[in-house]
Amino acid sequence: MTVPDPVSAAAVMSIPDFVAHWQGHRALTRRVIEAFPDDQLFTFSLGGMRPFGAQATEIHLVDAMTVTALRSGEWPEPDWASGPTDKAGLLAAWDAVSAELAEHGPHTDPAFFTDMHALPWGEMPGWVAAIYAVDNEIHHRAQGYVSLRALGIEPPAFYER
Amino acid sequence: MTVPDPVSAAAVMSIPDFVAHWQGHRALTRRVIEAFPDDQLFTFSLGGMRPFGAQATEIHLVDAMTVTALRSGEWPEPDWASGPTDKAGLLAAWDAVSAELAEHGPHTDPAFFTDMHALPWGEMPGWVAAIYAVDNEIHHRAQGYVSLRALGIEPPAFYER
Repeated sequence: MTVPDPVSAAAVMSIPDFVAHWQGHRALTRRVIEAFPDDQLFTFSLGGMRPFGAQATEIHLVDAMTVTALRSGEWPEPDWASGPTDKAGLLAAWDAVSAELAEHGPHTDPAFFTDMHALPWGEMPGWVAAIYAVDNEIHHRAQGYVSLRALGIEPPAFYER
Repeated sequence: MTVPDPVSAAAVMSIPDFVAHWQGHRALTRRVIEAFPDDQLFTFSLGGMRPFGAQATEIHLVDAMTVTALRSGEWPEPDWASGPTDKAGLLAAWDAVSAELAEHGPHTDPAFFTDMHALPWGEMPGWVAAIYAVDNEIHHRAQGYVSLRALGIEPPAFYER
């Protein structure tokens, strides 16, 4: 076997680390969804932004596609209009993806992260595609924090996962 | 030498990957800072949030501390009131940290990421502390996006790094 160069092969995050990191973010996003009143999640709009329910549904579709890819190496583009449209449906879909990530994520083929993948938005290495899902989730969720504050609701602590 | 278990040792991101990833986010945050009018960066407030200049200064102090730690393993807590207070000063401080990260980041001791570190906000593995700096940057920057939109300014594209 080839012994890898110790510096270039050194991991910032192992595969189980990455799965734990993402699940922590997914748990936080779930708390942000839950914090919205049922009747505001898909209707309250601030500064011309989409309601947080629409953003959270998009996060869900990107996350679901990425979890599928970790398992299968395939990136089937979702129907972006197909997501849940109420809080209970969104939370149920959310929990199903978290369960799939918990079951299959730690067994992701290590080559996934260095191989190139064709996503709906371009070709990139697997590690870029995987971390993009987490970054996209943090970015849109933070806009949900602003909406919660505007509604007079204290958002969940960012640093708790 | 010990041959590591191939799955648990497999990297999601190598050290150079992580540095490139963070620098891409730092470049985006720099564009968000630049997009604010000089006279609004430290004054415009939305929904009771701090002005984006104050959030960006805090991002800068967390990032600077983390870049110092990558190089030295030490986490000296900054004086949180010590950051830049105008746009030119903030951009100059930003560029200095990016240069330090470019020079020293790729040479971070691989053990940094698995060792435990004592941060001002608790004890954690190095990979958690390092990725927290990036996550904190994405989270607060996204709130700057909302302020830019409220000011009628189109923010830089999230997916461009």
